[in-house]
Amino acid sequence: MPRPSEDDLIARWLKPLATDPAALGLTDDCARLAAPAGEDLILKVDAVAEGIHFFPDDPWDAVARKALRVNLSDLAAKGARPLGYLLALGLPAEWTESQMDALAAGLADDQREFGLSLLGGDTIRAPAGLILSVTVLGAVPAGQGPSRAAAQAGDLLYISGTVGDAALGLRLRREAGLAARLGLDSAAAAHLLDRYLLPRPRLALGPAVRAHANGAMDVSDGLLIDLSRLCRAAGLAARLDTAAVPLSPAAARAVESDSELLEIVLTGGDDYEILATIPEASAAAFERDARAAGIPVARIGTLATAGDGPPIRLSDGRPLAPVALGYRHF
Amino acid sequence: MPRPSEDDLIARWLKPLATDPAALGLTDDCARLAAPAGEDLILKVDAVAEGIHFFPDDPWDAVARKALRVNLSDLAAKGARPLGYLLALGLPAEWTESQMDALAAGLADDQREFGLSLLGGDTIRAPAGLILSVTVLGAVPAGQGPSRAAAQAGDLLYISGTVGDAALGLRLRREAGLAARLGLDSAAAAHLLDRYLLPRPRLALGPAVRAHANGAMDVSDGLLIDLSRLCRAAGLAARLDTAAVPLSPAAARAVESDSELLEIVLTGGDDYEILATIPEASAAAFERDARAAGIPVARIGTLATAGDGPPIRLSDGRPLAPVALGYRHF
Repeated sequence: MPRPSEDDLIARWLKPLATDPAALGLTDDCARLAAPAGEDLILKVDAVAEGIHFFPDDPWDAVARKALRVNLSDLAAKGARPLGYLLALGLPAEWTESQMDALAAGLADDQREFGLSLLGGDTIRAPAGLILSVTVLGAVPAGQGPSRAAAQAGDLLYISGTVGDAALGLRLRREAGLAARLGLDSAAAAHLLDRYLLPRPRLALGPAVRAHANGAMDVSDGLLIDLSRLCRAAGLAARLDTAAVPLSPAAARAVESDSELLEIVLTGGDDYEILATIPEASAAAFERDARAAGIPVARIGTLATAGDGPPIRLSDGRPLAPVALGYRHF
Repeated sequence: MPRPSEDDLIARWLKPLATDPAALGLTDDCARLAAPAGEDLILKVDAVAEGIHFFPDDPWDAVARKALRVNLSDLAAKGARPLGYLLALGLPAEWTESQMDALAAGLADDQREFGLSLLGGDTIRAPAGLILSVTVLGAVPAGQGPSRAAAQAGDLLYISGTVGDAALGLRLRREAGLAARLGLDSAAAAHLLDRYLLPRPRLALGPAVRAHANGAMDVSDGLLIDLSRLCRAAGLAARLDTAAVPLSPAAARAVESDSELLEIVLTGGDDYEILATIPEASAAAFERDARAAGIPVARIGTLATAGDGPPIRLSDGRPLAPVALGYRHF
């Protein structure tokens, strides 16, 4: 097939995604939008690369949605509303029109679901494999919303959804026969695999987080390492009730079959859940607002002033077993 | 050498670049800055990849500066002031501390020169070779500044600096002995090579562009293809005086030695000069302001209403020779 020019590629697959006037129909160098009065801008970039963050045989609609969703997860953790996104798309030497159809369809679906659109981008040849770098722009009312550093001693520690599904899903992808060994039925295995393939950014929880949380972040590299980062940013220590960490039925079954998988659950990445620290006086209101938003949240510990010890201890004060603190990229 | 963790890498090389309070010391998920009141936000992402946009043996300080500068060039074309940038950094499996030292030093130099700093980023393993995706954020007074589509029939066509140097420099990189064949002395060859390695974003021309230009864009893929894009966005046609296209002494010497290189000059990419369309009544003021900013500008043609013919003709009305219209990425 003759390869489309960059202009043709933009016109066919990307321009239909650029529905906001700020994108100028992708016919200009830059996007342009009025600065939202009385708000703070929230900016984030995250990139995903073939063979690193997804498998070469993952469908491009899922890959594109993952690239967008891992960024939306960060907006959710700040309680921000999305204003739009930019996409730097690195295409491998070999790609097909049906792959680009899938990529554009996946983004179109998520644009509808999360209420944002493509503001601009760049399309390049990638040296090896598909690579996507997404920059999201969001906004919160000026001065509002949590940060990692704003977490306070005494705050209750909450996590949204369930933890460890994606890390277990990744393990299933890598180890043939593991699902059978763990006694997971096909629905349970499918749940874990899907959670790896397609993060669920908790944007619906954003307003509750903004209203009630002192500290918040999204958990992307693993619960323990991300919690330790929050502790470090805030100068605090955490007491973690590992038994309270919420597991999906599939993850619970896996851990029941092989208790060593609890380490994967606590340290594996790709959860994209919201870790929020809530003042005790606001806990009931936070739980109520989360319930109204349809996002389950679980209380998994407390924050305390930092001592000389490790940043995270178990609820009874014992240190955690010396597991690796999470995924290291290098 | 034991490879640093992602946190260590950020702390050592990237955090020192994140001097703006909006970056939150790179300790949070996102950057956060007050939306600039009464201004429009200008957003752009551009990525550069090893083996595609730069050579594997290019020094990392130059590569990082190029990644930042190609984006700043777009801000310049909108007359925008830079507010900051985000960097998605894809590192190959093999990298050295001295390469990271160079990358950080290059960015630090350019941050000082162009008055912006790192707001946030992501660091990933890249499948093959270094890859950088930079997102810049800029601002212009609300409603001010040019766009491609705002170019008007009758506008005079200006270009900053000189055209074709980088494309000739790239040719020199690829073809050993070419400099000698063209009779270029070492200073001339060095000039062309440097222009390929290190774009010069014309931010200093931004205020003059904002004050006087109807249409403007930066020339990155090649003068002819980018001019044709401006024409298409504005629904206009251009008359181009190819003899007026400004050449550096080195490029002039190259074209004098081999007249076929004029095609490289007009269609090669990586110029990162500003193409601006100026109403005739503002031409003198634009030239004066450009001179005051220290940026040479040359008048290279005019814009006219679009006819049925090709978007670009020579000044005497003849069509251009059917050269390729510029670099195609795929």
